[in-house]
Amino acid sequence: MILVNENYQRLQGSYLFSEIGKRIAAHKGEGVIKLGIGDVTRPLPPAVIDAMHSAVDDMSSAQGLHGYGPEQGYAWLREAIADNDYANMSIGADEIFVSDGAKCDTGNIGELFSGTCKVAVQDPVYPVYVDTNVMAGRSGEYDSDAKAYTDITYLPCTAENNFKPALPSTPVDLIYLCYPNNPTGTVLTKDELKTWVNYAKKNGAIILFDAAYEAFIREDDIPRSIYEIDGADEVAIEFRSFSKTAGFTGTRCAYTVVPKALYGVDSSGAKQSIRDMWNRRHCTKFNGVPYITQKGALACYSEQGKEQIKETIDYYLNNAKIITSGLKKIGIECFGGVNSPYVWLKTPDGMGSWEFFDKLLNEANVAGTPGAGFGSSGEGYFRLTAFNTEENTIKAVERLSALTL
Amino acid sequence: MILVNENYQRLQGSYLFSEIGKRIAAHKGEGVIKLGIGDVTRPLPPAVIDAMHSAVDDMSSAQGLHGYGPEQGYAWLREAIADNDYANMSIGADEIFVSDGAKCDTGNIGELFSGTCKVAVQDPVYPVYVDTNVMAGRSGEYDSDAKAYTDITYLPCTAENNFKPALPSTPVDLIYLCYPNNPTGTVLTKDELKTWVNYAKKNGAIILFDAAYEAFIREDDIPRSIYEIDGADEVAIEFRSFSKTAGFTGTRCAYTVVPKALYGVDSSGAKQSIRDMWNRRHCTKFNGVPYITQKGALACYSEQGKEQIKETIDYYLNNAKIITSGLKKIGIECFGGVNSPYVWLKTPDGMGSWEFFDKLLNEANVAGTPGAGFGSSGEGYFRLTAFNTEENTIKAVERLSALTL
Repeated sequence: MILVNENYQRLQGSYLFSEIGKRIAAHKGEGVIKLGIGDVTRPLPPAVIDAMHSAVDDMSSAQGLHGYGPEQGYAWLREAIADNDYANMSIGADEIFVSDGAKCDTGNIGELFSGTCKVAVQDPVYPVYVDTNVMAGRSGEYDSDAKAYTDITYLPCTAENNFKPALPSTPVDLIYLCYPNNPTGTVLTKDELKTWVNYAKKNGAIILFDAAYEAFIREDDIPRSIYEIDGADEVAIEFRSFSKTAGFTGTRCAYTVVPKALYGVDSSGAKQSIRDMWNRRHCTKFNGVPYITQKGALACYSEQGKEQIKETIDYYLNNAKIITSGLKKIGIECFGGVNSPYVWLKTPDGMGSWEFFDKLLNEANVAGTPGAGFGSSGEGYFRLTAFNTEENTIKAVERLSALTL
Repeated sequence: MILVNENYQRLQGSYLFSEIGKRIAAHKGEGVIKLGIGDVTRPLPPAVIDAMHSAVDDMSSAQGLHGYGPEQGYAWLREAIADNDYANMSIGADEIFVSDGAKCDTGNIGELFSGTCKVAVQDPVYPVYVDTNVMAGRSGEYDSDAKAYTDITYLPCTAENNFKPALPSTPVDLIYLCYPNNPTGTVLTKDELKTWVNYAKKNGAIILFDAAYEAFIREDDIPRSIYEIDGADEVAIEFRSFSKTAGFTGTRCAYTVVPKALYGVDSSGAKQSIRDMWNRRHCTKFNGVPYITQKGALACYSEQGKEQIKETIDYYLNNAKIITSGLKKIGIECFGGVNSPYVWLKTPDGMGSWEFFDKLLNEANVAGTPGAGFGSSGEGYFRLTAFNTEENTIKAVERLSALTL
């Protein structure tokens, strides 16, 4: 029989959301308000709807049919991205690769690098960064006491360091940074991000910068792109998505920026263009995003599209504000929610994440997500999200406020 | 600096289609008829257009919005696939994984297996099978004299063996078979395919069966699925696509069947479910196909959809017939084109593939694809496709018939 990729055996089951589901199902009360939702709930912007109807019509005639498109995405979309999202930055349309999801891209990017590369992730962390490196054989063994893989460098992000991780104390090659952060909702300033770019330059590392929540940034001095930092194009790959920006979680469009200035080396020491390697991977293992979807994504850059997107994000951000104000009133310390749909709260009296989950569910009829599910540094924290309706969000906060803590 | 995946350096440039483009551009004549097209040209079926319009409308309200769907595809689509494409076969909806392309799946499937697995491919071959194994480190070095990788087993398919490859003479673990075949347009009978299933069973190999052109099968006794062969679910993964079936090359929907009965082993000899490993990969590195696209794919299984698809395929098959009849009349030996949109011709007088390309372009103003571009066993052959209009196909054959050969 054929030998499998044994790295898969080191993967740990992801029980977080199934365990949450089970506990909600077992809960006797009716009308649980779910503030654990990590998915959008507002409809697609009307400009996107119109553009997609028109694109569907195109496909109904031989003249208008679009068959195989460029694997990298249509030039009109890549140019709109470069002009709008990277104005005044050194990023061109030929450094942008349109894809069907930031999850796919953050998962697949690891293929370009040696299996011996050392990986650093933030803790708490989006599990895909870790799991895909386990599959690639970079994780080492799982230490069930430490709840961590032996060969992965975890960078704790807690209230003590204001969710701004310290630079790694041992050498690493690939550093995953996610800002605005999932799950903590926190951000870095330009100066703080610059520290990371400088570290990567000095140490020959590459930063994999996940900016999927960029559209939620409302404060000044918070970089929307890592390329706002001088020289970042020599050390960073950036992942962006229309999922949380324009409600595309079920429509699927994202893009990854791999600058031409970014190089790795082979074992002879010769420089190798990461952009060219990603292009080769994209052309060999991917066949482009649907024409209809790309037309929808393009509409996000129209004046109407931009306005409609801003309205939707404002709606979510208002929910986040309702949550943070409510929590502060009852003396619960919380973070995020300003440039992010995620509110990260410190459980009162050092309660465990799951203990707080049960209390909230049973006494307030509100469901959230235990921080411990995102990594051991998430223990003692809890995530609430802004993706429910305003009405339900207000109601949930009222229920929380009535809790005896 | 970070060490790259050095396997990428063994990839050979794919100059086939760019070289064709250059020669056509350099050609002085006007009005070249392209019979080299590997992409569909007929519009999407009206049933698909209607379904997609309706799905776009769904996305315009909070009630109708579909966010993240199941990574494996919606149950309603997987069930329609199982009921329609695998009726009377032992394939259930939970063995079907909907994806954005057979290219992606045939490329990604290799991740499940050890880097030490031995790979066999047909020659001529769809380059993705080879290139993705080069990237994974299974190819060995490229031998530029032999135009082949040292560690890949090539199974020649030529007129001498009627394009039915002999079983490998040395042990292999992964066998890529594509039927109806791209590029030769040829097929295997049930008995012939059974030989392969038996070989795989006896030798502990897995067959990666690419059935992307299944919809073109019109003759009896030609298996549409490898699972028509008893016991194939223990040794085969099947790839199917809506691309050539329903004109989805720019709409992107495909699926892969990974049966529960299929196992590999780890180095301790313990059996490992390939289906479960693929499910884990799919959930970790993929986020599902757009809701709108899946609704379009579902419409392919409506009565109207089926009829409309048959009409389109009939249109292409009629073009193929025009080509094969024309070639035979002028004494050119050709293959395929009966259960396939591809016609594979033997160049007259042992002319080289590229020599024939130039002659056809310069003297008949018709472009096709040199067989040598698909592998060394393709030398002396040439591919014409049925994807142009009927009018152009007739005209091209008239031009060919006027050639002095």
